[in-house]
Amino acid sequence: MATHFAATNPMTTPAAATLGQLAAAPYDLAAPNALAPDRIQAMRSRAAGFDLLYATERLTDPVLDALGELATQTHAVDQFAAMMGGAVMNRIEGHPSEERQVLHTASRNVFDDLPCPHDPGQADAAAKAKAQLDRLKAFLADLDAGTLANAHGKPFTDLVQVGIGGSDLGPRALTIALRNYWRPDRRVHFVSNVDPDDAVAVLDDLDLATTLVNVVSKSGTTLETLTNERLVAERFVQAGLDPTRHFLSVTGEGSPMDNPDRYLRSFHMYDYIGGRFSATSMVGGVALGFGLGYDVFLDILRGAREMDLNALEPNARDNLPLLAALIGIWNRNFLGHATLAILPYSQMLSRFAAHLQQLDMESNGKRVNRRGEPVAYPTGPIVWGEPGTNGQHAFYQLIHQSETIIPSEFIGFRRSQAGLDLAVEGTTSQQKLLANLLAQTVALATGKPDDNPNKVFPGNRPSSVLIADQLTPHTLGALLAYYENKVAFQGFIWNINSFDQEGVQLGKVLAKQFTAHFEANASDASYDGADTDPTGWAMMKAAGLA
Amino acid sequence: MATHFAATNPMTTPAAATLGQLAAAPYDLAAPNALAPDRIQAMRSRAAGFDLLYATERLTDPVLDALGELATQTHAVDQFAAMMGGAVMNRIEGHPSEERQVLHTASRNVFDDLPCPHDPGQADAAAKAKAQLDRLKAFLADLDAGTLANAHGKPFTDLVQVGIGGSDLGPRALTIALRNYWRPDRRVHFVSNVDPDDAVAVLDDLDLATTLVNVVSKSGTTLETLTNERLVAERFVQAGLDPTRHFLSVTGEGSPMDNPDRYLRSFHMYDYIGGRFSATSMVGGVALGFGLGYDVFLDILRGAREMDLNALEPNARDNLPLLAALIGIWNRNFLGHATLAILPYSQMLSRFAAHLQQLDMESNGKRVNRRGEPVAYPTGPIVWGEPGTNGQHAFYQLIHQSETIIPSEFIGFRRSQAGLDLAVEGTTSQQKLLANLLAQTVALATGKPDDNPNKVFPGNRPSSVLIADQLTPHTLGALLAYYENKVAFQGFIWNINSFDQEGVQLGKVLAKQFTAHFEANASDASYDGADTDPTGWAMMKAAGLA
Repeated sequence: MATHFAATNPMTTPAAATLGQLAAAPYDLAAPNALAPDRIQAMRSRAAGFDLLYATERLTDPVLDALGELATQTHAVDQFAAMMGGAVMNRIEGHPSEERQVLHTASRNVFDDLPCPHDPGQADAAAKAKAQLDRLKAFLADLDAGTLANAHGKPFTDLVQVGIGGSDLGPRALTIALRNYWRPDRRVHFVSNVDPDDAVAVLDDLDLATTLVNVVSKSGTTLETLTNERLVAERFVQAGLDPTRHFLSVTGEGSPMDNPDRYLRSFHMYDYIGGRFSATSMVGGVALGFGLGYDVFLDILRGAREMDLNALEPNARDNLPLLAALIGIWNRNFLGHATLAILPYSQMLSRFAAHLQQLDMESNGKRVNRRGEPVAYPTGPIVWGEPGTNGQHAFYQLIHQSETIIPSEFIGFRRSQAGLDLAVEGTTSQQKLLANLLAQTVALATGKPDDNPNKVFPGNRPSSVLIADQLTPHTLGALLAYYENKVAFQGFIWNINSFDQEGVQLGKVLAKQFTAHFEANASDASYDGADTDPTGWAMMKAAGLA
Repeated sequence: MATHFAATNPMTTPAAATLGQLAAAPYDLAAPNALAPDRIQAMRSRAAGFDLLYATERLTDPVLDALGELATQTHAVDQFAAMMGGAVMNRIEGHPSEERQVLHTASRNVFDDLPCPHDPGQADAAAKAKAQLDRLKAFLADLDAGTLANAHGKPFTDLVQVGIGGSDLGPRALTIALRNYWRPDRRVHFVSNVDPDDAVAVLDDLDLATTLVNVVSKSGTTLETLTNERLVAERFVQAGLDPTRHFLSVTGEGSPMDNPDRYLRSFHMYDYIGGRFSATSMVGGVALGFGLGYDVFLDILRGAREMDLNALEPNARDNLPLLAALIGIWNRNFLGHATLAILPYSQMLSRFAAHLQQLDMESNGKRVNRRGEPVAYPTGPIVWGEPGTNGQHAFYQLIHQSETIIPSEFIGFRRSQAGLDLAVEGTTSQQKLLANLLAQTVALATGKPDDNPNKVFPGNRPSSVLIADQLTPHTLGALLAYYENKVAFQGFIWNINSFDQEGVQLGKVLAKQFTAHFEANASDASYDGADTDPTGWAMMKAAGLA
C-alpha cells in the first residue's frame, strides 16, 4: 500500500476558515431556552449500542456541517479505511521513522458473520489474529480440562500480568470494568511499576503454587517488565517452584521472550499494533481469557469490531468516533480548550480514564506533522478524569465555577452491571446515578444566575453524553474501539503521526546515565560522577542519593 | 477572632509587577549549562524530612525574591497563622457565606512535645481533637481486648468505610499508601459511588459477620452515603445480622447520624474542618486506626503537625508549603500554565493524586474573591497525575513533546517501603525507579536537539522534586499537610475562599429534578415531565430513560 496523506494542513482548509468565523460566536448554552427539546432530540447519533448526545456542546448545525467538511477535506474516513486496509500510516515523510502499518483493528476482524470491507489489505493480519485466538482457546481449554495444571496437578487460580503502559493500562481497565463477569475460581492481577513495592504488594496475597505469570513486552526488552519478571521469578524459586512451569509470555515473534524453554506458552503480538492500541490483541486476550473466559473475550472483540465498521461511515453524524473526534477538534482548536475530562458514571470504569489518558496523550501529544514540520495549531488535549458521582464531590467545583473551561465527556449505562439495587426514597441507586449524570451535563451547559456572586454558575461548559444499555463485554469492546478510533481520526485530521512515541526516548537515555551513577557509586567509594555528568551528579547529591 | 484579609489583589502588588516583567524572559532551562551544579545545590529547601529541589523550575533568584515579596505583600504567612489561630477564614465579605473557622490543623495539634504557637485560638479545637482521639484509642483497645466483638464473640476482621469526596479520597489514598503497615488480621475497604455496582463489588468478598461499617458524613445527609448505608445495611439484614452491632458513624455532633441507637459508636467531626481537609480527623482516624493501629495513625498526625509548624516560617525559602505555593503561582499566573501534573514515583501513592485533585481543585477552582468580586486572574490549576514509572509509558509523550506545557511535581523516596528488592543488571528496582525520576526532571528541563524533527525535545518544561527517605506514616502525614498547606497558601495569595464549594450546589438541585422524573415515571404511565421541565425531560427521552 502506497497511500499516504501527509499533505493537508487542516487549519488552511476552507472548512477551517468557516469554523474560525463560527467560533467567534459559539452557541450560547446559557441563553434562555438554549436546550430546547427539539435541539436535544436532533443532536443525537447512534451506533453499536451507543447513543451520543451532544446538544450540550457549543454547536450549531452550521458548525456540524463545517466539521463534516473538515473531515471530508482532510480525507478522514479515507485515511481510516486506508489504515484498516494496511497502509503504512506510522511514518514521518522524509525522515527516519517507524514505517509501519497500523492494524490493531485486525485483532477483532475475526467474525465470519460481520463484513470485511478491508480485505485483502487486512487479511494477513486478521489470519494471524485468528491463529493466536485459536492458540489462546486451546490453552484455556487445557486449563479447564486440567491437562495443563501445576506440578501437583492443581488448577491455576491466579494470573499476574507483568507489563507496563499499553501492556498494563488497557487490560487492567477492561478487567476491572467486567467485575461481574469474573470467573469465581480465578483472579487476575497486574504488576507494572519498577517500584519494587508494586510487585511485593501484589505477590503478598497469592499462593504462587497455583499462580500463572504472564509477561508482556512486544520488544522483549522493556526495562520495567524484565526487572519485574526477574523479581517475580526469584520469588517462585524461593518458594521451590519452577518458573518455566508458571510463566507465559506475550511478545513479538522472534523476540528474546519468544522462547519455549523459558515459558509454558508464548503468544504473539505484531509490530503493526502499538501498545496503547493492543488491548484486543493477546496483550489483553490472555489475562481476560483466563479471568473471564474465552467467550467473554470474543464478545469484547465483537463490540470493538462493530465500532470499527461504524468508523467507515462517510457521514460524520452517523459515524460516532468521527463525530466525537470533530467535536473534540472544535473544542480544542476553535474554542481553545486545552484539556478533556472523561467522566464515566460507572465505578466499574474506575481505571478507564487512565487507559484513555495514555491512548490519547501518547498518540496525539505531538508537535510535528507527518512531514516533520512543526505544527502551528494545538494537537492532543490533556486527558484526565474519575468516575461520577465521586468526581462531583471532588473536582467538579472547578469545572462549574472556574474561568478555565473543561470540555467533558460523560459515559453512562441505563442499567447497572450486577443488577443488584435497592430503592431508597422512591428511586434506585442506578436512577440516582443517572439523574446525577444528566443533572451535571445540563448544569454545566445552562449555568444559573444568582444575587450572591459566589453562587453564580456562568454555564457554557461544553459536554456530551455517551450512553448504552449496560456495561457488558460487548459494549465495553465498542466503547474501547470508539475511543481508539476517535483518537486515530483526530490524528488523521491534525495530520500528525498518532502511532509513534519518540517523546519517551530521551528519558530512557538519561535514566541509563543515572543507573550507571548508582552502579559505579555502589562499587567504588571514590567514584565522582561530576567528572562525566556534572548536572546529573549534582541532582543525585541534592536528592541525597550520592 | 476578627482578623480578615479580603483586601489584597495579588496582581496589583509591587511584587506582581516585578514578576510580570521577569516572566517576559523566564530562565532558559534548555540553554547550555543551565543546570549547573551550584544552581542545583542552591535551589533546595528542607523541612519535616523532605527536600524540595527546584532548580528545574524556570526560576532565578530575582524571581524567588519577588515571589517572597508577593507572599509578604499578601500577608500569606500571617493569614496562615490567623487560620491556625481560629480566624473565620471561610467567608465572603458582604455576602451570605459559611462564616466558619478553618481548623483542620487542630486535628494534629495533639502532641505535648511540639510547640503550640497558636493557642489559645486553636486550644478548644485541639482539645476536641484529643478527646476524639481518646475515644478512638479506647474503641480500638476494646477491639484488641475482645471486649468489643461480633454477636458470637468473634473479632472484627474488616471495615468498610462508606463515604464520598473528602470522606473517601483522603482516607483511601492514605490507606493504600501504607500497604506495608497494614495489620495482618485486618482489612479496610471503601464504598463511595452511588453506582450500586460499587457496593456490590466490595461486599462480594466479605464475611459480613466479622465486618464493621463506618459511615462518614459531616451533615449526616449526603445522598450517596445514606443510599449506600441503606444498601449495605439491607445486606446485613439479609444475612441475619443486626446493623446496629456492626455500624459506626463519623459525623457532626447532633447530626441525624449522631445516634447511639443506630450505631455501635459515633465519632465526631466539626464544621470548622472541610471534607477535603479532614483526613487527619476521625474521618481518616477510624479506618486507619482499625487497619493500621492507633500508633500508626498518631505517627501520621505527628508528620502533619511538623509540616504545619514549618508553614509558619516567615522566609519563603524555609517554608516548604509556601515555596511550593509560590512556584505554582509563578507557573500559573505568570507563565500561564493551566494544569499541574502530580507524579509520585511510588506505586503506594497510586491514589494520592486523586486526593490532591480534590484538595486543590475544590479549594481553589473559584472565580470570585473574598469580597465576591470576579477575579481577573487565573486561580487553581487542573490537577491530575499517575505514578511513575507507569506514566512514562503513558502520557509523558505529551509532556515532553507537545507545545502545551505541563508543570510537574515529582515525589520520590530514597528507599522502598517494603524493603524487598533485587539487583538486576547492577542496580536494584528502587535505584532504577529513582534513576527514572531524576532522568525525567532533567530531560523535561534541558530537552535535546536532533536532526530528525520528530526526535526534537524543546525542553523548558518546568518541574520540581520532593524527596524523603521512605514512605512511612510520618512522612506520609508530612506530605499530606504539605499539600493541604500549599493549597491554603495559594488561596490566601489569590484572595479567594479555599474552604467553601458552592460550585457543587446546582448539580444537586438539578439531580433532584431528575430523580423526581424517574419516580413519577415509574408510578404513573401517563406522566409527562415535559409539562414542568421540557429540557430535563427531553434529555431523559434522548438518553432512552423515559
